[in-house]
Amino acid sequence: MFDNAGKTDIEKLGEFGLIDHLTQNIQLKHKSTVKGVGDDAAVLNYADKKVLVSTDMLLEGIHFDLAYTPLKHLGYKAIQVNLSDICAMNARPTQVTVSLGLSSKYTLEAIEELYSGIYLACEQYNVDIIGGDTTSSKQGLVISITVLGEADEADITYRNGAQEGDLLCVSGDLGGAYVGLQLLEREKLVYLENPKIQPDLEGKDYIIERQLKPEARHDIVQLLKDLKVKPTSMIDVSDGLASEILHLCKQSNKGCQLYEEKIPVDPMTYDTAREFNLDPTVCALSGGEDYELLFTIKQADYDKIKHDVDVSIIGYITEASAGCQLISKGGQVHELKAQGWNAFKK
Amino acid sequence: MFDNAGKTDIEKLGEFGLIDHLTQNIQLKHKSTVKGVGDDAAVLNYADKKVLVSTDMLLEGIHFDLAYTPLKHLGYKAIQVNLSDICAMNARPTQVTVSLGLSSKYTLEAIEELYSGIYLACEQYNVDIIGGDTTSSKQGLVISITVLGEADEADITYRNGAQEGDLLCVSGDLGGAYVGLQLLEREKLVYLENPKIQPDLEGKDYIIERQLKPEARHDIVQLLKDLKVKPTSMIDVSDGLASEILHLCKQSNKGCQLYEEKIPVDPMTYDTAREFNLDPTVCALSGGEDYELLFTIKQADYDKIKHDVDVSIIGYITEASAGCQLISKGGQVHELKAQGWNAFKK
Repeated sequence: MFDNAGKTDIEKLGEFGLIDHLTQNIQLKHKSTVKGVGDDAAVLNYADKKVLVSTDMLLEGIHFDLAYTPLKHLGYKAIQVNLSDICAMNARPTQVTVSLGLSSKYTLEAIEELYSGIYLACEQYNVDIIGGDTTSSKQGLVISITVLGEADEADITYRNGAQEGDLLCVSGDLGGAYVGLQLLEREKLVYLENPKIQPDLEGKDYIIERQLKPEARHDIVQLLKDLKVKPTSMIDVSDGLASEILHLCKQSNKGCQLYEEKIPVDPMTYDTAREFNLDPTVCALSGGEDYELLFTIKQADYDKIKHDVDVSIIGYITEASAGCQLISKGGQVHELKAQGWNAFKK
Repeated sequence: MFDNAGKTDIEKLGEFGLIDHLTQNIQLKHKSTVKGVGDDAAVLNYADKKVLVSTDMLLEGIHFDLAYTPLKHLGYKAIQVNLSDICAMNARPTQVTVSLGLSSKYTLEAIEELYSGIYLACEQYNVDIIGGDTTSSKQGLVISITVLGEADEADITYRNGAQEGDLLCVSGDLGGAYVGLQLLEREKLVYLENPKIQPDLEGKDYIIERQLKPEARHDIVQLLKDLKVKPTSMIDVSDGLASEILHLCKQSNKGCQLYEEKIPVDPMTYDTAREFNLDPTVCALSGGEDYELLFTIKQADYDKIKHDVDVSIIGYITEASAGCQLISKGGQVHELKAQGWNAFKK
């Protein structure tokens, strides 16, 4: 990846040259974007909508490993993980700012690769790039993205609105991104031991893509709108299902019953977890990076959603004193615990 | 600074514990902040105001040197440099998100120091902290801040509105932050050669403060409002006066005449520059980090502003074909060139 022969050193362009180069083709799409890149600040006009803001920082060696992450995928994923936070408010992402710290190993061509993924994600999700910052870094790549979104006040869904008796729902399937990561880590080790051996990822496209190319579930936000279902609470699954359920219940001051057999796990995730001697349920509960939406709905809305194959009902909300419980496939009751990622684990 | 004996390792708190600890005392002040920290995204309501957004990334070893930058000052400055971008739109900063990447050398106590400066700046400038991200970093400290502001549409001032005959104005004085940096760098070298020698910064408070504790000029935004002067263009001086004038003229498609004798330089900046065998005018033109406001006004507004000691009129706008010219104290005419900072210079 870093064979830089014949490539362009970014020092030659300078900061303003690089920014001009990277932003020259931006076309603004949103009516709410009055002025994008090119002044001290962007100018936005939301009129009668509410504004949502979220931010995420991705650091080389912590959040991504360039040994198996193509730069285009990295740019795409960096946008998606931010959009996911806006979707988790039952809202629509509209603008992003993109800040990059770049070490000298990054040529212009490498940054263009990264940006091609950023642009692709913004294009597909109809999001305007309105600003950012670009600077050098002593070591490795730093990506910091802030996303803005808009929603009508009545649609915004917080984490704290779950009520007793509400159904606990999750979109898509879980654990795939984590099992995909195990596979990529294994093939990296094999490669480091013997660079002549080609990575064995055949037939594993789905879980590799879950790890390298996640998609924010704006389609679920649209689905709920179309079905006229207003969720009572919502969060995105970035740190594993268990951690997110505990956030929802804590902020809503409620408990829950979660049924192991109802947790959606793709067959490829299941089989590959088994190959690694991992429990597929644990991968779903604690794996993280699935970027699905976890939400609660009133029981009265059950009929509207029951036929949708992309939403699973995995449990229900109880009073706080009942605690958060996992009912295993064998019928045992366990206290639900978060074993999600500790960003400061050494 | 990094004697960590008896201090608290942040691994013990984990990401959520650290965020809770750092954000527990936040009090929201703005009507436009509907929901701050604690959900997937903050929720804002600007009603009939326009929204301004800007972002800046600061990296250890590139933008700051902890050998002479107290963490509290660093936190304060990180907020100020962002607020300055909103002031430069003739607008009022209202909210910030703060993302941190922290290496393992940072204890809880160190992060609290950093945050105390962040809070102080937000308190003094009446800005709400509404979110952020906190993660570990392989190398050093990463600070990424996004600032939001609001303004009535009629007040927003872009870089591209300068007209022929407009007066070129700058607030405060220039070059001090750069000369202060030279002083700090010199004392660092002395200290590294002989740790027993105490730094000799006596009587240099003003320029040290210009470097370590800059203030965004929201007071100038208020002054212009009070005087009923709407600038025709505006930018903040972060990369040196020359670079910023060239930005204004390029985006406005105009030229200018800049008078060296009119450029405001504090006596301490002047004398210290001379000690370092530096030309004080070059420090003002190319030094950067002054965070003053550079703006243009109509000649008709001259009488309103002429008695204000904190605003200097340093030249005027010409047609583009006349170019950007610096008239030296001796009366010679030079083409104005930017020798501002190249973020990618190795």
